[in-house]
Amino acid sequence: MADYSPVRGCIVFRPEGFAIWENIVAELDRRIKRTGARNAYFPLFIPESFIRKEASHVEGFSPELAVVTHGGGKELEEPLIVRPTSETIINHMFAQWIKSYRDLPLMVNQWCNVVRWEMRTRMFLRTSEFLWQEGHTAHATREEAEAETLTMLEVYRAFCEEFLAIPLIVGRKSAAERFAGALETYAIESLMGDGRALQCGTSHFLAQNFSRAFEIRYLDETNQWQYVWQTSWGVSTRLLGALIMVHGDDQGLRLPPAVAPVQAVIVPIWRKPAERDSVLEAAQRGILALTQAGVRCHLDDRAGITPGFKFNEWEMRGVPLRIEIGPRDVAAGEATLARRDGAGSASKVKSPLDRLPESVGALLDDIQKSLFRAAKDAMDAQTHEPKDFNGLAEQMEGEGGGGLAYVYWCGNPACETKIREETRATCRAIPLAQSAPPQSCIVCGEESRERAFFAKAY
Amino acid sequence: MADYSPVRGCIVFRPEGFAIWENIVAELDRRIKRTGARNAYFPLFIPESFIRKEASHVEGFSPELAVVTHGGGKELEEPLIVRPTSETIINHMFAQWIKSYRDLPLMVNQWCNVVRWEMRTRMFLRTSEFLWQEGHTAHATREEAEAETLTMLEVYRAFCEEFLAIPLIVGRKSAAERFAGALETYAIESLMGDGRALQCGTSHFLAQNFSRAFEIRYLDETNQWQYVWQTSWGVSTRLLGALIMVHGDDQGLRLPPAVAPVQAVIVPIWRKPAERDSVLEAAQRGILALTQAGVRCHLDDRAGITPGFKFNEWEMRGVPLRIEIGPRDVAAGEATLARRDGAGSASKVKSPLDRLPESVGALLDDIQKSLFRAAKDAMDAQTHEPKDFNGLAEQMEGEGGGGLAYVYWCGNPACETKIREETRATCRAIPLAQSAPPQSCIVCGEESRERAFFAKAY
Repeated sequence: MADYSPVRGCIVFRPEGFAIWENIVAELDRRIKRTGARNAYFPLFIPESFIRKEASHVEGFSPELAVVTHGGGKELEEPLIVRPTSETIINHMFAQWIKSYRDLPLMVNQWCNVVRWEMRTRMFLRTSEFLWQEGHTAHATREEAEAETLTMLEVYRAFCEEFLAIPLIVGRKSAAERFAGALETYAIESLMGDGRALQCGTSHFLAQNFSRAFEIRYLDETNQWQYVWQTSWGVSTRLLGALIMVHGDDQGLRLPPAVAPVQAVIVPIWRKPAERDSVLEAAQRGILALTQAGVRCHLDDRAGITPGFKFNEWEMRGVPLRIEIGPRDVAAGEATLARRDGAGSASKVKSPLDRLPESVGALLDDIQKSLFRAAKDAMDAQTHEPKDFNGLAEQMEGEGGGGLAYVYWCGNPACETKIREETRATCRAIPLAQSAPPQSCIVCGEESRERAFFAKAY
Repeated sequence: MADYSPVRGCIVFRPEGFAIWENIVAELDRRIKRTGARNAYFPLFIPESFIRKEASHVEGFSPELAVVTHGGGKELEEPLIVRPTSETIINHMFAQWIKSYRDLPLMVNQWCNVVRWEMRTRMFLRTSEFLWQEGHTAHATREEAEAETLTMLEVYRAFCEEFLAIPLIVGRKSAAERFAGALETYAIESLMGDGRALQCGTSHFLAQNFSRAFEIRYLDETNQWQYVWQTSWGVSTRLLGALIMVHGDDQGLRLPPAVAPVQAVIVPIWRKPAERDSVLEAAQRGILALTQAGVRCHLDDRAGITPGFKFNEWEMRGVPLRIEIGPRDVAAGEATLARRDGAGSASKVKSPLDRLPESVGALLDDIQKSLFRAAKDAMDAQTHEPKDFNGLAEQMEGEGGGGLAYVYWCGNPACETKIREETRATCRAIPLAQSAPPQSCIVCGEESRERAFFAKAY
């Protein structure tokens, strides 16, 4: 899927890994555009002075900036920052584009690379350069901007659960985990197989922090100047890491059919040369029928490699469905379908060759659902509700992850800090709609109106 | 379409301009993948030492490099170059990936941003940061690599002529115009409305220059180590500049239907409120039918803006077809179709409302062809065959462009330099298949076997 590169903290996306990202981009781009946002592209470089315009923004990002000091053989008058995120440069442009309430809402998205200098690299999860989309919107009212923040949170949730089959917890971030410059940050979080949480996407309500810093104002219908209300939201190539760690098993990747570059692979099997032609002919007819039915499929007719070797390779690569066609299958007018997820009453089933598209389609649907169900069951099994601080500490003991702890917490940063320092768990999400009666904070015992998910995180 | 940005030499692609680029990417990506190349992604940063590994490469790119010297608050041990092109980092990875003849051919492509520090910026044509695709391939034999170079040249030619309706000249570059590190560079060149040539895409035969510098070797079938033969090829957001300058007229853009984000716009027209409902209803039925037929269409039902204002705006934006629906049209069961290109016996025609998809489809096809024809005629009209150096100098006189001069040239760099210095025209392309008998070089009079296109270039 990827290699480390000779550049510190940067990875190379190999074609197999990148094809998954391309499918993510295509589907999510469609969903984003459906909300009314349009794609644009802003410069890679940001003047250093821009980053300094929003106080908490510069504080949050300063330690991880890459700086261009020379261009065209000369030292630059003002250093340029390689974008860690584009609020500042985009809002500089928004200030020029927005004049009147008629220009609102303004909703743009860009797919691009960003750089955040990392001391410790972790394949897909933490890399100095990564690919992402970042949406930036400006609205006339606070309510509209708040609604947009939640709309995008829901777009991300539906995308991850439906398309990537990754179950999530969804909610607000605590102040400590908030985006530098946001009034509220909302996030989708998933739980990896090892019991650690991974932030999969964020949606920020920026209020007027950036519009005041960048003077983004519009004339309202009564001819008064008003600052716009803003949001920003993004997901990144980190999702590839989530896919691997949520669905992978000891044999390698297990890709949900919706995102898999190859959904079904046909492996023809023969021993004697006389069997070869009829097997290959059946396999080719199968590929044709599947392709016409819209299934992304591949015929592995490599010579000199055993079927067993091919089975292993496609299993490792996570292809959801393997279709074996041997001489006996051809004679019986059948194919053998083997599910990568191993679910169902039997992981291998027979299908009539002339009904391959229907059989494959039904199985792919079922694999998509069963991978989600398996991941959801695993997450539920690792979600606990410790009653006191000792219970929480026990849950988080050891070097690995400790799953999710759903606990009452008063909201006081001091209690959050104590949890982090003593258990290494951080607040991952505070669910939005909470109706349970108040109870005691798991740390200080004060009345707590909300429960939050804590976990050790990547 | 775009704005200058606060960062020297960098532009902002606004949603309207970027939507055209997205269509270019989607179509060209499909055509590139059909040749067998797969997409990947390599780091933005390149260690400075890598750039120095291929002698002519570093010489060509040194003056235009942007350099990162600081990361994460510290000075870097080795400065990082922001990629101006990715031969060096990609070939470093190829050296690790390629071991045996079974690993060949290796064909990867990446869509990304690159930076080449420019002193003079020109919207789309010359910007410090631009977007492009760069393909990189490695082959077992020289013949295979040469064939790949020409295959991609033809992919680019067909794409530009068929999809962008931009007529081209195609050929080899002279040594002076060659890519830094290539043995041969091939290019597609178009002629802008002002008589200047624009390089639209290049395909390089790199021979073994990079494989020797980066030690990319494979074990052949006889177990001997061999250096691979390589190519690279790319087109960029420069194509947006070509689209504007080839097809634009005094009223603004004229987009070929194949690449236009909006192919047809419906402008409903009414004066009295009583007319409004029936007109809008007919317009909405039209949009539905067109969308179902796969036409990218838009209903401009903005209130408080006159039809005339809308006409101008959509003309300026280059939408190929405007569909006017007024009360009389509704009464007659018709719509009025106005071609942006103004070609055909009349630029406005009537269509039955219930046959809108067929009428629109046929007109869009015709507009695509007629824009190409008009651009081809303009190019042909500006292509001359001066018989002597004075004729060439006269053709190139003045501040504007001088069109294309198709002349005999002996191939001697001294003659090329004289042409450039005295006429400001450079060698744009030497057509591949030439069968005319040798004649005299237009500069020195020596025997010349080939003709070449010279022009002033952007």
